[in-house]
Amino acid sequence: MINQTYKKMLTGKSVIRELSEYATARGKEIGYENVFDYSLGNPSVPCPKEFTEEMLSMLEKEDPMAIHGYSPSLGIESVRTAIAESLNQRFGMEYQTEHIFMTSGAAGALAHALRCVTKPGDEVLIFAPYFTEYEHYVGGTGAVLRIVPADTETFQINFTAFEEMLTEKTAAVLINTPNNPSGIVYSKETIQRLAAIMEERQKQFGHDIFLISDEPYREIVFSGEESPYISKFYRNSISAYSYSKSLSLPGERIGYLAANPACTDADKIAVICSQISRGIGHNCPPSSIQLAVAKVLDKTSDLSVYETNRNLLYQALVEIGFSVVKPGGTFYIFPKALEEDAKAFCMKAKEYDLILVPADGFGCPGYFRMAYCIDTEKVKRSIPVLKRFAKEVYGMSVC
Amino acid sequence: MINQTYKKMLTGKSVIRELSEYATARGKEIGYENVFDYSLGNPSVPCPKEFTEEMLSMLEKEDPMAIHGYSPSLGIESVRTAIAESLNQRFGMEYQTEHIFMTSGAAGALAHALRCVTKPGDEVLIFAPYFTEYEHYVGGTGAVLRIVPADTETFQINFTAFEEMLTEKTAAVLINTPNNPSGIVYSKETIQRLAAIMEERQKQFGHDIFLISDEPYREIVFSGEESPYISKFYRNSISAYSYSKSLSLPGERIGYLAANPACTDADKIAVICSQISRGIGHNCPPSSIQLAVAKVLDKTSDLSVYETNRNLLYQALVEIGFSVVKPGGTFYIFPKALEEDAKAFCMKAKEYDLILVPADGFGCPGYFRMAYCIDTEKVKRSIPVLKRFAKEVYGMSVC
Repeated sequence: MINQTYKKMLTGKSVIRELSEYATARGKEIGYENVFDYSLGNPSVPCPKEFTEEMLSMLEKEDPMAIHGYSPSLGIESVRTAIAESLNQRFGMEYQTEHIFMTSGAAGALAHALRCVTKPGDEVLIFAPYFTEYEHYVGGTGAVLRIVPADTETFQINFTAFEEMLTEKTAAVLINTPNNPSGIVYSKETIQRLAAIMEERQKQFGHDIFLISDEPYREIVFSGEESPYISKFYRNSISAYSYSKSLSLPGERIGYLAANPACTDADKIAVICSQISRGIGHNCPPSSIQLAVAKVLDKTSDLSVYETNRNLLYQALVEIGFSVVKPGGTFYIFPKALEEDAKAFCMKAKEYDLILVPADGFGCPGYFRMAYCIDTEKVKRSIPVLKRFAKEVYGMSVC
Repeated sequence: MINQTYKKMLTGKSVIRELSEYATARGKEIGYENVFDYSLGNPSVPCPKEFTEEMLSMLEKEDPMAIHGYSPSLGIESVRTAIAESLNQRFGMEYQTEHIFMTSGAAGALAHALRCVTKPGDEVLIFAPYFTEYEHYVGGTGAVLRIVPADTETFQINFTAFEEMLTEKTAAVLINTPNNPSGIVYSKETIQRLAAIMEERQKQFGHDIFLISDEPYREIVFSGEESPYISKFYRNSISAYSYSKSLSLPGERIGYLAANPACTDADKIAVICSQISRGIGHNCPPSSIQLAVAKVLDKTSDLSVYETNRNLLYQALVEIGFSVVKPGGTFYIFPKALEEDAKAFCMKAKEYDLILVPADGFGCPGYFRMAYCIDTEKVKRSIPVLKRFAKEVYGMSVC
């Protein structure tokens, strides 16, 4: 019989998906160029040409059985080694091949890391605002998700709440910096304080508390910002990375998990993950994509458009009178809505063909997210519309 | 803390992997051409050139954002439609797009199908000999795996045992034809009888019993054999397919799940699977591979080598005096060992650089598997060695 638990999940439709579907439908009516679709976090720049060149060269010259053959379930060894070396060079770490596990994007890395360091009944702490899929990754392990409320002044960490919620039951803390949806980059001070508290509690409770760091936006950090490498600050840490954003390859589902060489059972985490894969029926990312990505590890797409868009939008939002913290990275901005009910606010914006996402689902009611991974030209055209909307509906005095 | 359940899994090393690693190491000593490695089920023929051409053409001509962009979690709609149409044409089915869910090979399809139609505590029946990973796919759902013993006369179904074990607790029956490891193709009579029993028990118990059909070898069926399409025979059926073998793309991790349009909740199975994916952190196969495969759905690699190898090996094994059922497909053959302990038998064969896999792990002690997806030239060279081994160690009177 069809599993009723999963069947019930069908009723909860994703707000983001609904809005994105609306934007597409509306685009068919009035032309998609006239819909200011800030709903989806889809990269808007192509992959680096070096990636395409590597793919073409492999397909033209190499033995198809070598390119398309089985990858070990941990990932192709040479690829894992190349990633370890790249991370060591960039961040002064000491990863070896054995610490790297190839995954289906950061999602796969997070789901594996969470299964690896929790057991059913344990607690996992995350910080609002958070990426909605975390609920599912944690739910899949049988552990209990607990949400630390946001510090809406800065969107750094609400340490008062965190210290209260970090108990003996906590097996893991999951962070995401640069952050989706706030766009905020955790400062060095935030990370040091987080690490110090966790170290102290580990001692107090006499068991490991793992810090799982979701890092798909690691390469999208704007000028003047510093994005510290998390594993430099805390021993029991695991990084989850994706090439979806840095190389604009979201559909190819490639990323990795990197276990801090200093963490408990560091030499076992990747092999445990390969055991976890067996029950899921998913073994490692596609072989050809692994091989091509390994050749362009230190490249990125041209990510400068995101900073341009951030500058335009931040300035406009401030001018209009929105309360908004300036993003340090990603391609998201996270203003406070102009009325208490962000859902109602976004519904009204829709009438102006502005597609904004209310942040209730991100654990931060009253706010909304704009994903500005769209053409700069469209961002520019959206600003007068945003101003008109704020003026006509909320009486904001903008020119 | 590291999950102890998963950590304990590390101790049980795969016999196949151990043998394969031995073969590689031994190859370094004496030259891999001198190791008769029948351990791994890795395709030995390249993908069709049309696949490579499609990949090249896409990478050269198409917008990188279209090729590498996010795929919906159900799979790319045009790809799902193309698969439905191809199946309808080949097998006279009535699949629509909504019945197809793109997966990470047959493994992903099986793991999703099992989660979809069971709940923890339910029973899932499989038939010995069986693909060892089934234990993990079923284990991952929380359902209980029950193994129907083999009919070693024919390697069709042991119906006496099946009828005893098919109880009110059974939520699903998982079959694999053409079969790994036996190489046997279930006859039409076998499938009809299986379907009739299951239909009757559904009525008796008043609940659905799903038939999950693992079909990665569907295209590898030898001349004179008929391989009936399972879903033609039973309403509550789900097919799990992989392009790993038919297109020789095992590393690209692409396959699909096809829900019988006549089954209970047929329109919901694919969307339920996309919900299941969320907790696993794995969403659908790579976008570029989906797009290229959709263009070559009805092609296969040149699979004729497998039949040539089957003929050579079957004849040799019979000549030597092995008890062996002639395979109708796949690239496996499954003889009875020349002593009761198949592990000891395979250890002795190793001394002759013959790498054979004992079938204890396949739920069929006393037998061994040879994966003859290797060069025909090597198969030919292995035969005198096989004969010498059988003669010297077991006194078989072969010339």
